[in-house]
This record gives sequence, C-alpha cells and structure tokens, in this order.
Amino acid sequence: MFRIIKQSKKSLARCGELTTPHGKINTPFFMPIATRGAVKNLTPEELNDLGAQIILSNTYHLLLRPGTKIIKRAGGLHQFIHWDKPILTDSGGYQIFSLRKNILQINQQGVKFRSEVDGQLISLTPSKVIKIQQILKSDIIMVLDDCLPHLNNKKKIDLAEQLTTHWAKKSKQAYTKLFKTVKNKQRPLLFAIVQGGIYTDLRQRSISNLKKIGFDGYAIGGLTIGEPIAKTYQILDILSQQLPVNHPRYLMGAGQPEQIVQAVKRGIDLFDCVIPTRNARHGLLYVFNHRVQSLQNDNFYQKIHLTNNKHKDDRRPIDSNCSCYTCQHYSRAYLRHLLMTKENLALRLLTIHNLSFYLNLMAKIRQSIAKDKL
Amino acid sequence: MFRIIKQSKKSLARCGELTTPHGKINTPFFMPIATRGAVKNLTPEELNDLGAQIILSNTYHLLLRPGTKIIKRAGGLHQFIHWDKPILTDSGGYQIFSLRKNILQINQQGVKFRSEVDGQLISLTPSKVIKIQQILKSDIIMVLDDCLPHLNNKKKIDLAEQLTTHWAKKSKQAYTKLFKTVKNKQRPLLFAIVQGGIYTDLRQRSISNLKKIGFDGYAIGGLTIGEPIAKTYQILDILSQQLPVNHPRYLMGAGQPEQIVQAVKRGIDLFDCVIPTRNARHGLLYVFNHRVQSLQNDNFYQKIHLTNNKHKDDRRPIDSNCSCYTCQHYSRAYLRHLLMTKENLALRLLTIHNLSFYLNLMAKIRQSIAKDKL
Repeated sequence: MFRIIKQSKKSLARCGELTTPHGKINTPFFMPIATRGAVKNLTPEELNDLGAQIILSNTYHLLLRPGTKIIKRAGGLHQFIHWDKPILTDSGGYQIFSLRKNILQINQQGVKFRSEVDGQLISLTPSKVIKIQQILKSDIIMVLDDCLPHLNNKKKIDLAEQLTTHWAKKSKQAYTKLFKTVKNKQRPLLFAIVQGGIYTDLRQRSISNLKKIGFDGYAIGGLTIGEPIAKTYQILDILSQQLPVNHPRYLMGAGQPEQIVQAVKRGIDLFDCVIPTRNARHGLLYVFNHRVQSLQNDNFYQKIHLTNNKHKDDRRPIDSNCSCYTCQHYSRAYLRHLLMTKENLALRLLTIHNLSFYLNLMAKIRQSIAKDKL
Repeated sequence: MFRIIKQSKKSLARCGELTTPHGKINTPFFMPIATRGAVKNLTPEELNDLGAQIILSNTYHLLLRPGTKIIKRAGGLHQFIHWDKPILTDSGGYQIFSLRKNILQINQQGVKFRSEVDGQLISLTPSKVIKIQQILKSDIIMVLDDCLPHLNNKKKIDLAEQLTTHWAKKSKQAYTKLFKTVKNKQRPLLFAIVQGGIYTDLRQRSISNLKKIGFDGYAIGGLTIGEPIAKTYQILDILSQQLPVNHPRYLMGAGQPEQIVQAVKRGIDLFDCVIPTRNARHGLLYVFNHRVQSLQNDNFYQKIHLTNNKHKDDRRPIDSNCSCYTCQHYSRAYLRHLLMTKENLALRLLTIHNLSFYLNLMAKIRQSIAKDKL
C-alpha cells in the first residue's frame, strides 16, 4: 500500500506513493483539515484546483455533530461532503484529551466523557472508534490514543503511552475482525500513534510495541504541541531510526513551513496542521522568498500581515509569482479591505492563497527529493 | 439608453434593455447587493454563473472604507473588486438617514455626519456624491436623497421631499458639468429618487418636479420600509401613471418574491434587496412550487427553514428541480450540518441557492411578459 519511489541521497527524506481505497497520494504530502467535513470556507472543487490529494476530518467532531447515523445513511463521509478523494479521519483522542475537564472516566476499556455540544454522555472504546471510522468510510483510520499536553511529568507520560499501546492492540483486533472479508484494495489503512512525549526511552518502547502489533502506517502524536523546536527535531531524529522504513510516517499537527522541511528530512511523509487555514483567516499570509531557492535555508519564505496599514493601498497581489485564484485576480488593498470590513469572502480568498502555498511547498519538497537536493 | 422590447398586454409590465458603459441589462432585473464591494460570500465568477447582470454597491459604505482614494488609484470600483459588468451605486442617503443619531447638520447644501467607523466628520453635498460615484466609475449613479423612515408625519415627509428634489436639481447640474465631454456610450446613467412617503400628493409633486429636471431613470425611495403592503401597491399604482413610460423605474429595497411580481405588473424594471442573501445566511431558503405555474398566484414559491430539525437527515437537495451548484451537489442534511456548526461554507452555498432562485424568478417574469401572461 506504500511504495517508496525515491530515497534522497542527502537525508532520510523520501518520495512515496500511498494507495488508499479512494486513490493514490504522492508523499510527502500536507492534508488540509476538514474538521467537521468541510475545509473552512472552501468547496471540494476549490481543493481539487489547489491540488489537494487527501483531506483530514475528525471522528470526534463528526460523532458529536451530525452523528454517525446521518453520515451512514448518506453513504459515508465522501458522499455526505461531496469529496471523492482520500480522507484520513483522526480518532478524536487529541480532541477528547484536550478537553480533559469533560472526561468522566478513563481506563483500559476506553474513555467516558460529556459532549461539549449538548452535555450528552459519550463512551468510546478503541474498537468503537474503529467501527465509527468504518461507517465514515475513511481511507486512513487512526487508533484511539491518550494524548497528553506537553509536560515534564514522566510518570504520566509513561502511563499514557502504555494506555495508547494497549488501545492500539485492541484497535488492531477490532480492525482485523471488521475488515477480514474486505478485499485488500477496498480496505482502509490503519495507522498507529506513537506517544511518549519528550522521553526517548518511552518513545522507543512505544514504537517497539506498535511494530510488534503491526500497522499500515505510524503517526507521531504529542509532538509540536509546545516543546522547544530543537527538542522536536531531536525526538524525530531518534524516531526516524526506529520506525519501519517501508511504512508511511505521519507527524500529527505539524507545522510551520520550515518545520515541515525539517521533518521531511527526518523521513516524515504526511502532515496536517491548522496553520495555513487559521492564519489565513487572521490575515497572516505565506509567500515564497524568490531570492532563496533552497528549502534548506529557513528564509525560503516570508509572512505578510495583511492587516498592517502599509498594505492599505497596495495594488500588487499577495505574491506576484503565485498562480492561485486569489493572486490572479485581487490586490492586497482589496483583500485587506474585505478583511477589515469582516467580509467572509476575505476568509475564502486568503485560505485559497495559504493552502496554495502549503501544497506548492510540498510539490517543491518532492521535486527537491527527486533531485537529491534535500 | 433604455429600450422597451415588449409591453405586456395584460398589465403595465414590460421587458426592456438598459444600456450602460459596462454592458446591457435585460429588465425586469434584480440586483444582488455588494454593499462594500463584494456580494457577501460570493466571487464575481459565481455571480456570473448565476446570471447576475448588474450588482449594487454603496457609496456611503465605500466612502467610509476603504475610501475613494484607494478605489481611484485601483482604476475604479470594477477593477478594485474584479467585476466587469455594470454596477449601480446607491447614493448613501438611505444609510446616512437610517443612522440619524450621527447627523450633525442637514440643509439645502447637504448633510454633515460622523462616520460610524471612526467618528470622523464627513460632509456630503449633492454634487460631491455625484463626484464620488464618478470616481467609482459607476454605471448607474443615484442622487443624494433625504430618506425618512415610514411615519405618519406629513409635514416631515413634505420637507424631506422638497429637500430631495432640491438636491436632485443640484445633482443634475453637477452631473451635467462632470460628464459634458464624455461620449454618450461612456456616460453613466443618472437616476433620481422619488420620495413622498405614503402621501399621494407629495409623491405626485415629487415626480412632477423630477421629470422637469430630467433623468435617465427614476427610483422610488421610501417604500417597502414598513408601511402595509396594500398601501405599497396603491402608491405604486398611482406612481406608474405618472412616471415617464420610456425611462427605467427602480423600486429601491424591494422585496419578497410576490412583491417583485406585483411591482413588475405596475411597471417596475429594477429591484434590489438584502432578502435573498441575508435570509440565506439564516437558513431561510426559497424554492419554486412546481405545482403552481402562474406567478400571478402568490403561492408560486415556498420557504424552507433549514434549521428545522426535520431536515436533519434529509438527503434531498434544497430543490431537486434547481440547477444551482448547491442543489447539484449537496443534501439538506449536509447544508444544515454546516449551518448548525457555523461553517462559513454554509453561508456561501445557501446564498448561491437563494440568488439562483431570485435571478431565475426574474427570468420567469421576463418570459411571462414576453408571452403576455403577466
């Protein structure tokens, strides 16, 4: 299901091809986030035009609203949201545990919590989370994990890693049972989540145990959530030695453009992050620095703060070298005007540009790997 | 500049062709509202696909933000907002006078008020308002008017009508001076505004005086702003006898679908209203009743409240007979989900449907007139 097309001679970076029931993905790739079944402000056609190969939705949010019954009756998430390319669904672990105050019970069986929407009691087990993602017809299914915030309490991180690994085992059992009669081509991929915080020994134990269970891909959770960036790279260096080479690796929730480049060099294949879309909505825009060709140089891009007064009368596009719809038709002055007067159209146009930047960045990364330049 | 193509044999309804510097408009027509230079949530390409022939922007709002300097330097409003079809700009009278608390002075010279945005003192005269619209490069320029809310104080309405007529004279003088060297084809149209509230004699005096000054078109202001609808129709009946037959007539701010039909029958050619776009954003949707063919029957359409629980699991489009992008690709269940979870994409998709309904309604009206069925 994952094939390495090109291994860089310069680093651990590689180009790959990941095959899923809804199509192939050229890696390294960045997944735009469609938390509730829509990438904020964009249609599927716009995502297609931008070159999106896969989007990420969230099991937890979709479970709360509209609920699995409605999506099931629609024929699955793809049909419900009018998107026919691959979808990865996050398990909801991160969301549940980032709202810890709502958790009533957590143990080897699973987790009980109150819905943030209507207070309803919800009970999730590792196998139930797999079942929900089967109903959604996800292409890449994530296991339920216990994701702690960044902290220096090794005992807690240790327990969370143990629980995550135990749940991963249960998830794999549920997955095997659910899909045993499904043909390989139609079978979604199952990804495990490596936990262990900033503790090398815990991370190593996590990988070692997950490898024994065996998964289609390995995600790295609980990184880029507040620890110093040097620490992130250090952990990635260690993980990259341990993770099985022939399986896709997904760094969850990362990150800034230069962090993506650094992670790719450490063998990461998949990314997701709210940064391009969320920042767009605040007028923080990404543009390539056309004087810096190498992605190795962290100055390969710069940020534009569109709310800044200096763009008030600027008739240039956000980036005159960018071919996105927004840069082809609109000036900074007009986009700033829309943003300052709270016209929703601004959110769409700026999101288009930032996603265009991120997806072009991934294309540049793949080209650089192909030429052994990264 | 205005040519009547077909006069209905059944009523005062007529099909016309209005020629402006940026193109022709087939009337009767409905103008989507782009208050601040954008129809909320839509791109110009989407408006084109919907069949929009002209949009309406607001001099007052554009004057406050981003200001005329920026639009002038962009080469005019069309270039600034990326729209190459006609634009009508409202004078701002309605906006200024609906925020009466901000008015500092009002007399024959003009009006002084404080900006609602930054408290800045703004002074507008009839000729300055024309000048601003020249800078915007509007295709249809509206005169400054004194627009009172619906009230039963004849003395006040009388004075407002007198002031509006005085300003109209000043506006015409300014317009003639500004455009005297401009070729007829490049010359924007100048529309007067008939005031006089619900008082027939005041309305008649208003028309009589405005006709003497002479304008390209005549707008009816201060109607459909709260008076009983029977009264609106009664006033329209009287006005339609008085207004010059060969000039376009524009009923400002109207209205519900059946009100548009009733006004067309009374000889109105142009409409604008926030109803389709604003209601869309609240999940109130318009669909044709395919069992009622005649527009004469007020039941020719119905409203759908998308927030209603009954649409939660409804896999049908808003209207299975509608060919708009939204109805072609999305279920009520999904659209409701997006709306309930406050995803902006809902606002866009629902706006597309409602504008599609309104613009199709106008097409149906033109067809009905052509066949003498209205």
